[in-house]
Formats: sequence, C-alpha cells, structure tokens
Amino acid sequence: MAENETTAMTIGKQLVALCQEGKGLEAIDTLYDEKIVSIEAQGSDEMPARMEGIQAIRSKSTWWYDNHEIHSSSATGPFCGYREDQFAVCFTMDVTFKPSGERTQMVEVGLYTVSNDKVVQEEFLNEVG
Amino acid sequence: MAENETTAMTIGKQLVALCQEGKGLEAIDTLYDEKIVSIEAQGSDEMPARMEGIQAIRSKSTWWYDNHEIHSSSATGPFCGYREDQFAVCFTMDVTFKPSGERTQMVEVGLYTVSNDKVVQEEFLNEVG
Repeated sequence: MAENETTAMTIGKQLVALCQEGKGLEAIDTLYDEKIVSIEAQGSDEMPARMEGIQAIRSKSTWWYDNHEIHSSSATGPFCGYREDQFAVCFTMDVTFKPSGERTQMVEVGLYTVSNDKVVQEEFLNEVG
Repeated sequence: MAENETTAMTIGKQLVALCQEGKGLEAIDTLYDEKIVSIEAQGSDEMPARMEGIQAIRSKSTWWYDNHEIHSSSATGPFCGYREDQFAVCFTMDVTFKPSGERTQMVEVGLYTVSNDKVVQEEFLNEVG
C-alpha cells in the first residue's frame, strides 16, 4: 500500500482490476463483507432494490451474468474524495438481455462504502436520460 | 418535469447541460443554495478542502477558470440512485494550469446533494492512479 493510500483506495483498485478482467464474482468473494448491503436504483417484486447478505448478492450477480451477453464493458476508477471509507467506480456496458434479446448501452456509477477492510455497501446510480 | 422525475434528476440535468456549455458559474448562480458546502478530495492552506457559502464557492470557481486553460471538457450524467436527494456527474477535463504550464487530463466524479430545490452540497472524488 502506497503512503497516504487509504483502505478504500486499495480495495477500490482491486475491485476495478477484477471488474476489468470480467471477474465480478471473484470481487464479491474476496472483497465483500458477509453483511454486504447492495442498493440498486430501481427494484421489482422479484428483485428488490435493497438486498443484504453475501449469498443474496452472489445470487443476484450470478443471475445477471447468466442472463446477459456482454459485448463489452469497462470499469474506470476508483475515485476517492475526503471520505476515507468511500470510493466510486464508473461502469460502461454494452449488453444484450438474453430473455428479451434487447441490447443496451449503459453507464452507471457505483458508490462503495468500506469498513474493516471489506466492502459493506454498494449503491448503483443510473444515467438519467 | 417528467413523471417520476425527482428534483435531483431535474437539477442534475440542468447542471450537466450548463457544464457542457462551459457555464459552470451560471450553474452556481442558478442552482446552488446560499449555504452550499463544497468538499474537494484534497485541500491546502490557501484553499481548504471544505468551503461553505455561495460567495466562497463563486470565488473558488472564478479562480479555477482564471487559472486554467481548458482544452476540452465534458460532463456525463446525471446519475441517480435510490436516494432522491442525490445525483452524480462524471467530468473529464484536459486543462493547462496557467501558472505552471502543466497540462493534465483528469476524470472526476461529482456527488451532489439537493434540498428544497437547490444544491446544498457538492463533493468531488478524484481518480486514484
């Protein structure tokens, strides 16, 4: 860890590196707390916006990978500010939702909170058209 | 305002549009609260990371425009999540700091908090190399 580097910076760099390699599930397994809270911008009856616990987040992520064909994706960051427990990542994705065949290009911002060397919350902000 | 559009979305769109036109000062004048709090990732003795009040933020912004030559800049967003009082914007800039002649390409994330139809806090997260 470089001098002045916060835990959020260190974990943020690891998360971005894993996401760039398409290893999102490995990021969950290695960097996330057991009690991780995940909050999407929108939810549905089947998939509520707020989910809690590493098992629920693993299932959500597995579902996502199973149901999307990824044409390209990138993760930029991490971005860090004055809060030492927070980092942000910008994601761009070009994906096809397999059940409908609909192809979408999207950009989103992930906001991450770190505590005791683990990611304890992830929150996704979607681009508003 | 479109159905289901929150105040944060509306203000975020206006802020992004003004920034894209290079009208950052107009965004401050029209969208910011008198008691705006602005928090940079780093501060110095001359320019503390946390500043408060519309006059201080106008001065900081004027100083920034006076001291940078902007080769190109873009604002992407707004990005909105479950919090109805928050939006994020991704900024990319290619600028030369006039006093030193140093040219820098940078990406940063701005996190904005809205209350009573005005931006009451802006917080900047810098890309960690």
